[in-house]
Amino acid sequence: MTPANAPATPLRGVLAPVLTPFDGRLTPDQARYNRHCAWLLAHGCAGLAPFGTTSEANSLSLEERLQLLEGLVASGIPAARLIPGTGCCSIPETAALSAHAASLGCAGVLMLPPFYYKGMPEEGLYRHYAEVIERVGDARLRVYLYHIPPVSQVPVPPALVERLLKAYPGTLTGVKDSSGDWPNTQALLALVPAGLSVFPGSEVFLLRGLRLGSSGCITASANVNPGPIDHLYRNWQSPEAEALQAGLDQTRKILAACGPIIPTLKAVLAHFSQDPGWRTVRPPHVDLADAAAVLGQLRETGFRMPGLAF
Amino acid sequence: MTPANAPATPLRGVLAPVLTPFDGRLTPDQARYNRHCAWLLAHGCAGLAPFGTTSEANSLSLEERLQLLEGLVASGIPAARLIPGTGCCSIPETAALSAHAASLGCAGVLMLPPFYYKGMPEEGLYRHYAEVIERVGDARLRVYLYHIPPVSQVPVPPALVERLLKAYPGTLTGVKDSSGDWPNTQALLALVPAGLSVFPGSEVFLLRGLRLGSSGCITASANVNPGPIDHLYRNWQSPEAEALQAGLDQTRKILAACGPIIPTLKAVLAHFSQDPGWRTVRPPHVDLADAAAVLGQLRETGFRMPGLAF
Repeated sequence: MTPANAPATPLRGVLAPVLTPFDGRLTPDQARYNRHCAWLLAHGCAGLAPFGTTSEANSLSLEERLQLLEGLVASGIPAARLIPGTGCCSIPETAALSAHAASLGCAGVLMLPPFYYKGMPEEGLYRHYAEVIERVGDARLRVYLYHIPPVSQVPVPPALVERLLKAYPGTLTGVKDSSGDWPNTQALLALVPAGLSVFPGSEVFLLRGLRLGSSGCITASANVNPGPIDHLYRNWQSPEAEALQAGLDQTRKILAACGPIIPTLKAVLAHFSQDPGWRTVRPPHVDLADAAAVLGQLRETGFRMPGLAF
Repeated sequence: MTPANAPATPLRGVLAPVLTPFDGRLTPDQARYNRHCAWLLAHGCAGLAPFGTTSEANSLSLEERLQLLEGLVASGIPAARLIPGTGCCSIPETAALSAHAASLGCAGVLMLPPFYYKGMPEEGLYRHYAEVIERVGDARLRVYLYHIPPVSQVPVPPALVERLLKAYPGTLTGVKDSSGDWPNTQALLALVPAGLSVFPGSEVFLLRGLRLGSSGCITASANVNPGPIDHLYRNWQSPEAEALQAGLDQTRKILAACGPIIPTLKAVLAHFSQDPGWRTVRPPHVDLADAAAVLGQLRETGFRMPGLAF
């Protein structure tokens, strides 16, 4: 039986780990944030993953995350379209953010493993996640595990996903795989028949993933290129699918080649929205010194962001 | 001119990154904590570094840290003997913890770099630390940078230490070097004449460090072995210094060889204090399955913890 207010079916499609705007005092800018989220949902995103790695989430305080999420929902963005990141290093903070998201009616939460201590035994990671789920104690909670070893340096191996899926059926809903390691994604996709939603962490795996039962992708580039990524998601069985994938790969390559991805995406969004404030990043990130290269290369491909400027 | 209530001179000697006790519900146990801290100060520690890596600090919430520190000072432990860890991934949380510690009159704060995002430019780390110091805006603040690349995976290189020392003289006070990399410690010790306090992160570097002007050490093993480490600190110029160092090295080797260091230290403390509750760790750590090996080897060396059980 589905509990009252529980998300009916898991989200599918293209999700953006939403960029977080800061004002000149490095404070999160709610109005700019709400506008960007509305634009994403209107231009190809099935859902949003606020507070992902691309969102500079780990440069935000717990209090800032609570406020931004509440402000976003209050602006009219449906909570049922949101899978906010809630994974902190500590059990109480992860539980607090997750309980808050569940109480707002979010479609799920995206949960990093505790990422300070390295080389922890799988049993310790299991106990961490189990304790968080027990502390939240809300039947509406839907957990997506977040595997991003290049950044977290703490993996969420498929065996751990499988163990949690068995222990918490209905709650453990999915996984975002940002390993960039296709065999790992394949191992996770083998758990789809057992009820797991799998989102590769980049659109370069979109077509390959969909062919093996993935739910779409959660990808940084969706912040600036949601339409074309969604177009492939909707047409992956068409004869043009391979060509669409090649187009996405080309854009992704440009975005990744001209500097660190977060400052690059912010610079691209600042340019096309004619809002230079978007360039601001919070330390330890440093804003892009010069966006001419990435903008020039994008222009050559016919890249555009329809419906901007704000 | 020294501001009112500013720490007069930097701490010197042996500091313990204090183990954090948890009760059966994984909640921090203030009474046990206060007792352990008092025992440490009475048995060789010149000061304490609550909320270090050994303290499972990154498994605590911000709120739990604030409460534990206030409870400790309220119990009568002098704030002037405390250098609590305050380095979080975010600027606002690092600033909040640091401002709180400074307002209590703590001798300093031990500040990890923002450790989620890897490969950040040195400029970004500089901006992070600078923004934290500016936001605290308290002349009483004394910052000790915390270099522990094996865990944080984000280094605080000597060049960054030097730049901050020049930008914030009087505030930037010291560094804890837990790299285990002696040439790195030597590079930092070269900054002692410029006003830097240097604490190696292990007593295995105690004698070598003191000979080059270090201030002592901040070491996990001080939680169970403070007296002998302090004895070498006080007698490093005596003819027996090398023999004392060899004794410390032997104990350290045993503590490090029988399992992960945090559960091992907690098991040793649980045994000698006859308080099995000390064995509890918070996930992702897992408590030691069997302490017989480490206890047996320690016994053969004549190891003891005078003044226990509590």
